[in-house]
Amino acid sequence: MRKILLLVCVLCCVVSLRAMDHEGIVDETLADGRFPLIVAGRPTPVLADETDFPGVPRAIRTLLKDFGRVCGTDAVWETSPAGGPMIIVGTYGTPLIDRLVRKGKLDKKSLQGKREKYVMTVVDAPMDGVPEALVIAGSDRRGTMYGIYELSEQIGVSPWYFWADVPPVQHRDLSMARGTYTAGEPAVRYRGLFLNDEAPCLTTWVKNHYGTDFGGHAFYADVFELILRLRGNFLWPAMWGWAFYADDPENSAVADEMGIVMGTSHHEPMARNHQEWTRNRQAYGGVWDYTQNKTELQRFFREGMERARNTEDLITIGMRGDGDEALQGSTADNIRMMESLFADQRRIIREVTGRPAEQRPQVWALYKEVQSYYEEGLRVPDDVTILLSDDNWGDTRWLPGAAERQRTGGWGMYYHVDYVGAPRNSKWLNVTPIQHMWDQLRLTYDYGVDRLWVLNVGDLKPMEYPIDLFMDMAWNPQAFTAENLLDHTLRFCRQQFGEAAAPEAARILNLSCKYSGRVTAEMLDRNTYDLESGEWRRVADDYVRLEVEALRQYLTLPESVRDAYRQLVLFPVQALANVYDMYYAQAMNHKLYAAGLPEADLWADRVERDFARDKELS
Amino acid sequence: MRKILLLVCVLCCVVSLRAMDHEGIVDETLADGRFPLIVAGRPTPVLADETDFPGVPRAIRTLLKDFGRVCGTDAVWETSPAGGPMIIVGTYGTPLIDRLVRKGKLDKKSLQGKREKYVMTVVDAPMDGVPEALVIAGSDRRGTMYGIYELSEQIGVSPWYFWADVPPVQHRDLSMARGTYTAGEPAVRYRGLFLNDEAPCLTTWVKNHYGTDFGGHAFYADVFELILRLRGNFLWPAMWGWAFYADDPENSAVADEMGIVMGTSHHEPMARNHQEWTRNRQAYGGVWDYTQNKTELQRFFREGMERARNTEDLITIGMRGDGDEALQGSTADNIRMMESLFADQRRIIREVTGRPAEQRPQVWALYKEVQSYYEEGLRVPDDVTILLSDDNWGDTRWLPGAAERQRTGGWGMYYHVDYVGAPRNSKWLNVTPIQHMWDQLRLTYDYGVDRLWVLNVGDLKPMEYPIDLFMDMAWNPQAFTAENLLDHTLRFCRQQFGEAAAPEAARILNLSCKYSGRVTAEMLDRNTYDLESGEWRRVADDYVRLEVEALRQYLTLPESVRDAYRQLVLFPVQALANVYDMYYAQAMNHKLYAAGLPEADLWADRVERDFARDKELS
Repeated sequence: MRKILLLVCVLCCVVSLRAMDHEGIVDETLADGRFPLIVAGRPTPVLADETDFPGVPRAIRTLLKDFGRVCGTDAVWETSPAGGPMIIVGTYGTPLIDRLVRKGKLDKKSLQGKREKYVMTVVDAPMDGVPEALVIAGSDRRGTMYGIYELSEQIGVSPWYFWADVPPVQHRDLSMARGTYTAGEPAVRYRGLFLNDEAPCLTTWVKNHYGTDFGGHAFYADVFELILRLRGNFLWPAMWGWAFYADDPENSAVADEMGIVMGTSHHEPMARNHQEWTRNRQAYGGVWDYTQNKTELQRFFREGMERARNTEDLITIGMRGDGDEALQGSTADNIRMMESLFADQRRIIREVTGRPAEQRPQVWALYKEVQSYYEEGLRVPDDVTILLSDDNWGDTRWLPGAAERQRTGGWGMYYHVDYVGAPRNSKWLNVTPIQHMWDQLRLTYDYGVDRLWVLNVGDLKPMEYPIDLFMDMAWNPQAFTAENLLDHTLRFCRQQFGEAAAPEAARILNLSCKYSGRVTAEMLDRNTYDLESGEWRRVADDYVRLEVEALRQYLTLPESVRDAYRQLVLFPVQALANVYDMYYAQAMNHKLYAAGLPEADLWADRVERDFARDKELS
Repeated sequence: MRKILLLVCVLCCVVSLRAMDHEGIVDETLADGRFPLIVAGRPTPVLADETDFPGVPRAIRTLLKDFGRVCGTDAVWETSPAGGPMIIVGTYGTPLIDRLVRKGKLDKKSLQGKREKYVMTVVDAPMDGVPEALVIAGSDRRGTMYGIYELSEQIGVSPWYFWADVPPVQHRDLSMARGTYTAGEPAVRYRGLFLNDEAPCLTTWVKNHYGTDFGGHAFYADVFELILRLRGNFLWPAMWGWAFYADDPENSAVADEMGIVMGTSHHEPMARNHQEWTRNRQAYGGVWDYTQNKTELQRFFREGMERARNTEDLITIGMRGDGDEALQGSTADNIRMMESLFADQRRIIREVTGRPAEQRPQVWALYKEVQSYYEEGLRVPDDVTILLSDDNWGDTRWLPGAAERQRTGGWGMYYHVDYVGAPRNSKWLNVTPIQHMWDQLRLTYDYGVDRLWVLNVGDLKPMEYPIDLFMDMAWNPQAFTAENLLDHTLRFCRQQFGEAAAPEAARILNLSCKYSGRVTAEMLDRNTYDLESGEWRRVADDYVRLEVEALRQYLTLPESVRDAYRQLVLFPVQALANVYDMYYAQAMNHKLYAAGLPEADLWADRVERDFARDKELS
């Protein structure tokens, strides 16, 4: 402990970092013995088969462009040896990769039978005309794609380059240390997002950016690319006004091609979007009640299943009330109804796929009152994944005991950073402290919930950081400990804002999540904090101090990084600092008004100023 | 009084403004009946005599460039009618202007016998070949120059364009309403600045910018131009390490040409710089003591007087101890010495000028202990101006009574916004609240102190705003009232940052001067405020809030205005916010250390961070 006597020496800051996957393997030297990725602004060419599994060629074409983003010249896709070093990309089971396995250039054991695993390795003389190559080989198509996007990150393209305008790092020369690198297999099988309540933010932006009144395949391809860059594989599409399967027939085809497993949200059974029901209600008998309208609802379900037959899509079974409302009627009646519903839905699956129902992955969501049916004894077949959820405040409601963990369908977690419902929506800004999310997801994984993790992200923005953390934890939750958790924040900030800005940005981002987790902006009002004890002024001042720190850092950043910083760090702080100031001013106004003091008017002015500023900020 | 119920209508802000001199007479229309100043990017040509009084041609050439600064093309100086509208510039008593007076185009009474007055008027057919003209006529050369610079301000060049990087307003078309405009005569005869203790800031900047180890004539010409643009006429030059008269023989010549009356500071008698004594002490007998070294000191004085004989320079008489120290010896002895000193100095003035001493303006400064001699009865001849001063905290020490106000030499005021001396220097940032300066200067003027106002401005920067206010008050103190004072701040901000930014910038600037006036940064320490009552946190938070407001505004400004805003508003707020935070953190550190709490270390870190940041900011 130190007593500080002004004026002392400048602080020497040593920060311990969790290693990024393969951290430090690329640099700008072109020393002997390193594999050249970019030389004098020209990328090393890529060798791959167009006939690799679906999704891989598209990811390769994205990689070619990623090279262009960092050095100004896109990489070239060659179909035969080019006489120099090459980047060879392919999937286990394709002739290109199998040949390398046979020649002993790749270790068969590291790929065969593995799930979504890549191996990235520098090898000598993989084939005639190629003296050395960086081989990126996947155990399956997603493994290959994750390897491709790992290389993108290594050369300087953030997964957030598009969604948060993070500028790619510029390199004229770049090389990789020789070695074999892999991130192993994922801990959680399905890892993905839920775009929830897309209007008005996301719908407006999509309209402006893609020119469609719905989420079409160009939009979804960009979402899928983000998910893949984050090593995810799953999506619940937007369902407030849009219908993924119905709006654009290419949507499902593109998801299937890119390797994204689609689902439908907890209250949308049998691969049908809720909007398909809303828009065509009358054509299906008009009543969302399985006891009253069984035949038509079965037709509705069967059509969904037929459409999804040849995809990897995960089938939601069960039912809630119309439009995500609770079911009517008694629990006992509903349980009886649900049991027959499950049987019927699984019969449809069997009939449509022509195979036993247990061979098609299904999920049943224990969301809100549906959980009570489970508690009363309702069960689904053992192969169906049961999806748990948090309580909308980021705390898991329930986790399975040791016996329940034995079920073959396993368990999933539906987690929220954006929430629509009582007591009040939380849809504006991230209100989840980093530590809280980590604690609950670790608990989730420790209790064996590893089949499906899906995160409700609202409009996607401004949830970039919690998305990033969620996906990384879904891949390898055991890598995160109380001691090293904030290294993730630091690593995230380093990738988005650069090495120099990372420590301060991570400090601000962490504090920002802490402060915003105290109470949601939607729940905040003039009575939230105590005025007399100075608490109100203190929390309002805390925010102002955080804002000034963010603004100071903003001004030190290169112009190219400022947009990303504004989106990821500055705006949430400014917006909440302003709302805090507004309610604090209102509290002061009421107090002084009650005391008959004319200074009340000054605080009224401040409320009005803040109210106007909120509009300006948005 | 209002009780505010969220959420209310947006504040409609109506601000009452003090009229700027001739406010609103120019705009970008080229309507019939208005006089064109700039048409399609080309300025109206200027007609003037090269043989006008010294200083006027140089000011005209500056005006030509000022037109270029606002429209991209410098104005042209014509010596004969050009067939279209012209701007005619000249001084009463020159053939060009006298001819217009005779033709009835100018009112003789408005110019003849007036001091430093300009008339700016649009006239028809002033001469053959000129259908209409904007005539700028001065009662004397400074009057003409003030008229020229008034036009510069009207077209969009701030007096601070050079010293605070204020971008000239861009115009493609500009016209002036027909009419006759004048700012009248000044209330105070000599109005100027004192550059005090120029090292290290100003010396380093001058070295970098002008390439000289001293203040040479290129540097001083820029200072003089600023003074003229602010309608001043007087300067005490920098004297800590520089010697205005000795360093560069052109200095005095340029001042004389440009119409700047030079003085020497209160302890530098007879137009000699203190450095001239310090550097050549041995050549003059080595002792700065009039009783011991009278003959040599008289020689030193006489040389100064001979050098300044043909200038308008104001002669400082009297003496203090060596290097601005108090005189040694008893008050009675010193009074006797001073009486003989005055007689000798005035004899030298008479002998050198060949005219009675009372015909050469002189000043005697009652600074610090010298005031006590006056209080003990020491008097100077009636024609000598007696210079009073503030107490270095911005309060006038003493003001003359009704009888004393009758003296023909009148009274002057030496006012400080930068101060070197006990209990501690105040040399970093402006610490003078706007209201305090106004109050004391109004008092000064109300008590008849109107012969000389000189402001100690340290390195000049960052005292831009107090300089601006001081000079405007020196011209017309009665225009400033408690009700309209902040209109001056608003007008200043409007000129530097534009109409839209002015109200918020003025609010911040005013608060910044208020906060910084609480205690100087140099006097602040961890004990200045009370920790237990929350006072320390409160004042520190006040500064953070002000900083965030300044940063928010900074980010809304066009790039072109940001440099000026940073210099005039943002930097002082950031720098003091940081120092406040540092001492607050130190206070917290000491408290927690005393209580044996390890959190003391966190506050120690914060002190170190702030200390490092202070360097970064500077």
